[in-house]
Amino acid sequence: MRMVDIISKKRDGKALSTEEIQFFIDGYTNGEIPDYQASALAMAIFFQDMNDQERADLTMAMVGSGDTIDLSAIEGIKVDKHSTGGVGDTTTLVLAPLVAAVGVPVAKMSGRGLGHTGGTIDKLESIEGFHIELDKKDFIDLVNRDKVAVIGQSGNLTPADKKMYALRDVTGTVNSIPLIASSIMSKKIAAGADAIVLDVKTGAGAFMKTDEDAENLAHAMVRIGNNVGRNTMAVISDMSQPLGEAIGNALEVKEAIDTLKGQGPEDLTELVLVLGSQMVVLAKKAATLDEARTKLMEVIENGAALEKFKTFLSNQGGDASIVDHPEKLPQAKYQIEVPAKTSGFVSQIVADEIGIAAMILGAGRATKEDEINLAVGLMLRKKVGDAVKEGESLVTIFADQEDVENVKAKIYENIQISAHATAPTLVHKVITE
Amino acid sequence: MRMVDIISKKRDGKALSTEEIQFFIDGYTNGEIPDYQASALAMAIFFQDMNDQERADLTMAMVGSGDTIDLSAIEGIKVDKHSTGGVGDTTTLVLAPLVAAVGVPVAKMSGRGLGHTGGTIDKLESIEGFHIELDKKDFIDLVNRDKVAVIGQSGNLTPADKKMYALRDVTGTVNSIPLIASSIMSKKIAAGADAIVLDVKTGAGAFMKTDEDAENLAHAMVRIGNNVGRNTMAVISDMSQPLGEAIGNALEVKEAIDTLKGQGPEDLTELVLVLGSQMVVLAKKAATLDEARTKLMEVIENGAALEKFKTFLSNQGGDASIVDHPEKLPQAKYQIEVPAKTSGFVSQIVADEIGIAAMILGAGRATKEDEINLAVGLMLRKKVGDAVKEGESLVTIFADQEDVENVKAKIYENIQISAHATAPTLVHKVITE
Repeated sequence: MRMVDIISKKRDGKALSTEEIQFFIDGYTNGEIPDYQASALAMAIFFQDMNDQERADLTMAMVGSGDTIDLSAIEGIKVDKHSTGGVGDTTTLVLAPLVAAVGVPVAKMSGRGLGHTGGTIDKLESIEGFHIELDKKDFIDLVNRDKVAVIGQSGNLTPADKKMYALRDVTGTVNSIPLIASSIMSKKIAAGADAIVLDVKTGAGAFMKTDEDAENLAHAMVRIGNNVGRNTMAVISDMSQPLGEAIGNALEVKEAIDTLKGQGPEDLTELVLVLGSQMVVLAKKAATLDEARTKLMEVIENGAALEKFKTFLSNQGGDASIVDHPEKLPQAKYQIEVPAKTSGFVSQIVADEIGIAAMILGAGRATKEDEINLAVGLMLRKKVGDAVKEGESLVTIFADQEDVENVKAKIYENIQISAHATAPTLVHKVITE
Repeated sequence: MRMVDIISKKRDGKALSTEEIQFFIDGYTNGEIPDYQASALAMAIFFQDMNDQERADLTMAMVGSGDTIDLSAIEGIKVDKHSTGGVGDTTTLVLAPLVAAVGVPVAKMSGRGLGHTGGTIDKLESIEGFHIELDKKDFIDLVNRDKVAVIGQSGNLTPADKKMYALRDVTGTVNSIPLIASSIMSKKIAAGADAIVLDVKTGAGAFMKTDEDAENLAHAMVRIGNNVGRNTMAVISDMSQPLGEAIGNALEVKEAIDTLKGQGPEDLTELVLVLGSQMVVLAKKAATLDEARTKLMEVIENGAALEKFKTFLSNQGGDASIVDHPEKLPQAKYQIEVPAKTSGFVSQIVADEIGIAAMILGAGRATKEDEINLAVGLMLRKKVGDAVKEGESLVTIFADQEDVENVKAKIYENIQISAHATAPTLVHKVITE
């Protein structure tokens, strides 16, 4: 087998065999196939696409390129959730204890990552004492006993995907549905998921700018999952504005607590119920999405979800009293309001630019070496469709410095007020095949 | 400017600017742009093509990537000819003295190259004493005085093209009209051509297997030439069977002499007259192709073309007496006939396979280090459309060893005899724009 023949075959629109895809991924991972052949193949895939079998083969070849996490010692169906990224996305923090409270095992591996705010681990570390240094056995015991635990990423998972992703980033081949879908799915499968729920964001703040692209990606991932024996469902959700109200690490922990109490922002609560219902169904803890939703609403109303969050924090050294005393979370020195300059209705909140405003305050990392300030961030006081009067606060800035003129300016630039506006639909579509 | 943006722009079907193409070629030549980005761009070009302006820009950027040959000290319009490769192609050997005899300056740079037989220089070196070690001044003086001289390739011509070609070869991006056309044209222009005649071969023995592909390539090259101020014409010629009768170095010299005497094979003679007419017109030594053809036929009939060949050989140390005594050329030890096994008409001679048979005898190089045997080769005794009787010779093998069973077998495999067959049309099309 020669790589040049594999490239030419794909270039000519033919389907690659399982063996050819395996040959490529093996050779690329071990360095025998050079970057310049991998990038040519990626570009050929961009133009010629891959069929369902090729996508499944590529995903499983990347899973096999490195370590995989064995969660078989955990009872039940391990359901993982993945979001394609967005701004102010607090869903993982809420979902983990929420679905655990109805008996779904949540064995979460999480990273720190780059972005507007930290990753789930950074957010949880704003809780005094909380740590993710569990050994494998304790992690599994915790999930078996209390249904939820979080551990840092370890092992060399999907090295082929890491190498391909870095290459795609500099060769104009990021935006290819089969490559994006297999990349995401390979990581989830290597991390031990038996079933997967996908939250594909669409809109200005998302990687997929249109519903059509988002749906194509969602269908692609759901089909890969189902084709490789991992039941998968997806939700297309709105990211034309940030999700919820909090953008920042401690601020999002507080928002998660509110949501677990049934007092969270409407959009975040709804999305958590939709995604959570899919997780519960995939874990076979309910027969239908409606039944699952009823169960989730019950554990919010009866306090079991919040109780599960406390247990989870205590199990990993965290101070569970913050749930009742959120003032113990890191607090920013200054709270600065951003008043509306005119009256009307909020018609646009440009999600990614508002995310950058939070990053400027120190809430996120631009490079791996950056330190995160867990206390700072933004609280949106108005969302798209809300009426606002001149002088009313649009956003509260939580900062450790007094001078935030640049952040204010960015916020004003990216929140529009018009004579008319309506709230966007949150859940655009539920995709189960 | 960032290379990833240039790749993405081409991927999305947009035209690259002159500056973007220059940025790519400069960066790729000096190593700042890595192979993996160049191969991704090449694949994007494969799918999205380039417009006339981009093709001209790419050609001239590659010309500018290295040395260029300055032939301005030679009087008149320097016309170069390029063939896209084939089997038994003796045209250059005939054309150089032929058009020189009507006053067209031929300042030929030639290489050795790989292939079924040697390059033009190898062929000429089968003439005792002939050499190409001329200094630049002597070369120019010879062309000014006698209108024809050949020198070996020197200088670092079109390094960007060399690097790109090697990369395309292993990344499935050879077969792209804009990339092939700009590669060929950049080499001719860097070698100092004012005007260019192209012989684009089509058929089984050629790189372009169909007339449509050959015409597309010819039009592409003619347009590039005309757009960058080098008048260019092209001929689409048949390479479904080898051209002429001789395949081998000394054998082709003998065939060239016969053709200059007006006693050459019909197809070779015709192609030389068609290509030569274009060269004469482009050099402004005739107003029309018909007038040019008449002049060429005159210098064949009156012996001036043959005389020019002798002068050319003598000028470069060669023994011109071989023209009248071709038995002084290197002679193979054995001549072995390959008799027809049945009677009928020759219906197919698979050009590239017959070329490989000559290479097996030692007539060509597979690698740069191989030594060529100038004496050996094949003479086709029958061409497609010829009647043949059982036992009549199809081919004479000129070999230095007696055992040529493998060569014989290859010839039998690749010459078909049928009940009916007609000769193929030689010149498929003349393209002047």
